[in-house]
Amino acid sequence: MNKPGFEFWFDFASTYSYLSVCRIEDLARKEGISIEWKPFLLGPIFNSQGWDTSPFNIYKAKGEYMWRDIERQSKKFEIPFNNPSQFPRNGLLAARVALASQSEDWCPEFISRVFSANFVEDKDIADEEVIASILNSLGMDALRIIAQAKSQDSKDELRLQTQLAADKGIFGAPSFVIGKEIFWGNDRLEDAFSWYNKHK
Amino acid sequence: MNKPGFEFWFDFASTYSYLSVCRIEDLARKEGISIEWKPFLLGPIFNSQGWDTSPFNIYKAKGEYMWRDIERQSKKFEIPFNNPSQFPRNGLLAARVALASQSEDWCPEFISRVFSANFVEDKDIADEEVIASILNSLGMDALRIIAQAKSQDSKDELRLQTQLAADKGIFGAPSFVIGKEIFWGNDRLEDAFSWYNKHK
Repeated sequence: MNKPGFEFWFDFASTYSYLSVCRIEDLARKEGISIEWKPFLLGPIFNSQGWDTSPFNIYKAKGEYMWRDIERQSKKFEIPFNNPSQFPRNGLLAARVALASQSEDWCPEFISRVFSANFVEDKDIADEEVIASILNSLGMDALRIIAQAKSQDSKDELRLQTQLAADKGIFGAPSFVIGKEIFWGNDRLEDAFSWYNKHK
Repeated sequence: MNKPGFEFWFDFASTYSYLSVCRIEDLARKEGISIEWKPFLLGPIFNSQGWDTSPFNIYKAKGEYMWRDIERQSKKFEIPFNNPSQFPRNGLLAARVALASQSEDWCPEFISRVFSANFVEDKDIADEEVIASILNSLGMDALRIIAQAKSQDSKDELRLQTQLAADKGIFGAPSFVIGKEIFWGNDRLEDAFSWYNKHK
């Protein structure tokens, strides 16, 4: 049986996913671990819990705390962060692009730039222009990639991916998954790496 | 103006509060910080969010994750832990005792033994006999203390304390509060200490 990979499940709208996106590649390099990037949508998972938006919007005190915590945490990790003027943003198109391109070399950089657009530059990542401009900045054929991302195949693929996340027991993002072990939250990134290295 | 204290808000039924109870005194000694123990009830705060029990019971995937996470975390911190046969247990009496005795030398040890009863020995901390036996083991007059904890004054005091927690913006436990800064969760204990020491 093959050793399970190190899966990084993230949602483009998720603040704590952003912190992990900024941290994971350096840590993975140091640990000699290669990451499997797993974009998915929290929306349907939240819906199945009876929530129609982020719990940070539904539960006021928790939401206020999260914004302050992200401010402190991004300072601690020396990560640039600016409060987005809209939360959560719709990461559907970005997730379809990332999923269809997951085996491409430029995909991690695409992911990182989309997160920066949302949480540093305060751009609307639901906007095709924003995604196209990121793809162009990477030297990619934005028109072709976006057309593909809007195909039925691509829609089905992301729906399956999100169902797979739910089936694994994922309920939030970021989640780091190694076989049957789930580590939830940016706070568990180091623990997840250490688990992976202990069990290889 | 006096420097704000380091407040440790906890609920006797809370698994992650237990991890912090086991860790906080050693860390506080090393940091030279004295702790203000703040027992309160999560129940009314959860109620105001529309929950009639712990979110770990309401949201199944999150609950299953929590039990696995606590198992891994307690191993990591070398903290004894056994899954309680009932969750959450009613910590009302224990909280009233702890609140009425908060300035007593024996109070931190009482708190620690109640958490062990719940999360190591699988005893029902709602049971007066269990609380009495812990008080007796500390050489205290259990009958007198429990009678006092059941007085109207004591009930009012805990109600006020829980309202104070809500007013501060506390929505979960453990929470570490320094002036207007809230640090939520056992994962933020070190950050809270470091904040406290940087701002004294």
